[in-house]
Amino acid sequence: QEKVENKTPLVNESLKKFLSTKDGRVVAGLVVEFLQFFNLDFTLAVFEPESSTLNGLDSRENLARDLGIIEAEGTVGGPLLLEVIRRCHQKKGSSSA
Amino acid sequence: QEKVENKTPLVNESLKKFLSTKDGRVVAGLVVEFLQFFNLDFTLAVFEPESSTLNGLDSRENLARDLGIIEAEGTVGGPLLLEVIRRCHQKKGSSSA
Repeated sequence: QEKVENKTPLVNESLKKFLSTKDGRVVAGLVVEFLQFFNLDFTLAVFEPESSTLNGLDSRENLARDLGIIEAEGTVGGPLLLEVIRRCHQKKGSSSA
Repeated sequence: QEKVENKTPLVNESLKKFLSTKDGRVVAGLVVEFLQFFNLDFTLAVFEPESSTLNGLDSRENLARDLGIIEAEGTVGGPLLLEVIRRCHQKKGSSSA
């Protein structure tokens, strides 16, 4: 049996840590939803094992609820990230930063 | 020489249309920045040809400027999407929707 101690770990520690947070899982969920929305199946097939998200992230429905996005005619035609960005633009110029 | 007319097109028309918009390019740029931030190189290697974004999207610096994000200690430790989501949460509950 080979020794494995010195092999490069396959786990992406910074991503693993990120995915252990609620916001991190929402971000990764939005990325996956974007890939699914545009049927980028080859990218998804690589992303899931590389990011260790094979066990699944939140569905679009859950992500929208988390983000307070109410799905309507203007949102269903694009990935959720589009709606997120639109809100960002609305917010731009406010003094909360 | 073979006829190619009846072959399935390799171009993703809905994504192509999406990337022709400013917001669409920002969204795709944020996805790529997320993948780069976590060194998901295999995913990137598939995403770029599959999405026809080999010619490049905006850099993190340009994306941040577009979104009105001022990079600081609290933002540089994560992908830009994390900061975008944090703002979304701040905005949640406002009556603009």
